[in-house]
Amino acid sequence: MNKTIEKQLNHKSIRKFKNEALDQETVSLLVDVARHTSTSNFMQSYSIMSITDPQLKKEISKVCKQSYVAESGHLFIFLIDQHRNAQIAKEHDVDTDVLGSFDRFQIASSDALLAAQNTLIAAESMDLGGVLLGSVLNDAQKIIELLNLPKYVFPIIGLALGYPDQTPQLKPRLPQAMMHYENTYPEIENYTEKLADYDEIVQTYYDLRDANRRVDAFTSQINQSMSRKPEGRMALLEALNKQGLLKF
Amino acid sequence: MNKTIEKQLNHKSIRKFKNEALDQETVSLLVDVARHTSTSNFMQSYSIMSITDPQLKKEISKVCKQSYVAESGHLFIFLIDQHRNAQIAKEHDVDTDVLGSFDRFQIASSDALLAAQNTLIAAESMDLGGVLLGSVLNDAQKIIELLNLPKYVFPIIGLALGYPDQTPQLKPRLPQAMMHYENTYPEIENYTEKLADYDEIVQTYYDLRDANRRVDAFTSQINQSMSRKPEGRMALLEALNKQGLLKF
Repeated sequence: MNKTIEKQLNHKSIRKFKNEALDQETVSLLVDVARHTSTSNFMQSYSIMSITDPQLKKEISKVCKQSYVAESGHLFIFLIDQHRNAQIAKEHDVDTDVLGSFDRFQIASSDALLAAQNTLIAAESMDLGGVLLGSVLNDAQKIIELLNLPKYVFPIIGLALGYPDQTPQLKPRLPQAMMHYENTYPEIENYTEKLADYDEIVQTYYDLRDANRRVDAFTSQINQSMSRKPEGRMALLEALNKQGLLKF
Repeated sequence: MNKTIEKQLNHKSIRKFKNEALDQETVSLLVDVARHTSTSNFMQSYSIMSITDPQLKKEISKVCKQSYVAESGHLFIFLIDQHRNAQIAKEHDVDTDVLGSFDRFQIASSDALLAAQNTLIAAESMDLGGVLLGSVLNDAQKIIELLNLPKYVFPIIGLALGYPDQTPQLKPRLPQAMMHYENTYPEIENYTEKLADYDEIVQTYYDLRDANRRVDAFTSQINQSMSRKPEGRMALLEALNKQGLLKF
């Protein structure tokens, strides 16, 4: 097994960082990796925001409800970005109607997410640690205001990086049999029963984020998740629409 | 620079494969890598479909309008998958209403896309080549039918892998100054002018996919993209809604 895969199989989100910022060279190398990620239709409809202002980092940390975001060695926000392409089109009197479609939203979202994952892998290969922050979506409107994002730009995921100051356990994932299928989607009866062993494994996993309590079984976590409807998350579509995206 | 990053900076989509299938062990290792990708809220709301049936591969290749999909050494389709979690909830009489929200769509889409990128990196680290297939979205409804996908499952991206039988040039990407910003989104005037040098570089890039014609400048490609509204792509939301997703 090569080193890349060894690292990938050993991926753990890092949420405690040493008090040391990434240097400019490292940040630039990471952005270069991001730039070389696959991009849908070569439209490159994403951008990357580096948050270097400590006060701004704190504000974003509040949206994420994760104090370690403020304490990270570098914070990236990956943006859906159709603004650049819209401006190009406008400069040539080309209609930009299509940018409001689900198709173009998805293309841009995909670009940004693929780039984020690629960046995380690069960071981990350098023995940096990090955590992807879907939590920027807790209040996307607030992030839009903080970063002064114009029409057609939207923060889709964050990435907090730094020098790791913790050694979490590997988090146990669903067994292949329950998530890798062949040619056709299988009819599975009684998921709870089939996941009983996995539930047991998850329960004995020791979560550093909250060392004081036993982790709930996977199926219990899923059941609980169904009633989680935080206001900010349920208002995401409104925030997208305000940015001219997903307008249908 | 380490090997992982060297490979990432040298990423090229491979669209011509040797006539050799990936063995079971390699496929299983790649799925293991995917399984260890970050997953939003630990919900693991994605699944992976391996397409091993040659006839099915051909059908999917038609949707993608890319013959090399049928000729790949292995074909993965990454699925948004809330079916598993919905079934768990139903078995405990828990309401699954929230799965129709944009939030849960995005969480699942993110899971699937991050896993796809992670898998591609793993494959490339083994000197395999591949190409991500946003083109499954050309006719998502057809893919849904071909793979027999139940409610709450949706094909969001494909990944064709294999032993490379071509050596494409590195495709030139937007310079950092035009896609990496700091703390605030910059006001840039005259993108076309600012991208003139890049346009020139793109034009001299030799695209193996169509060696007979000069590649259009980046800004020209963007302008052309604005009028591209293929029927299947514009019907994606309908397909999603039919699967119980993005219902608002």
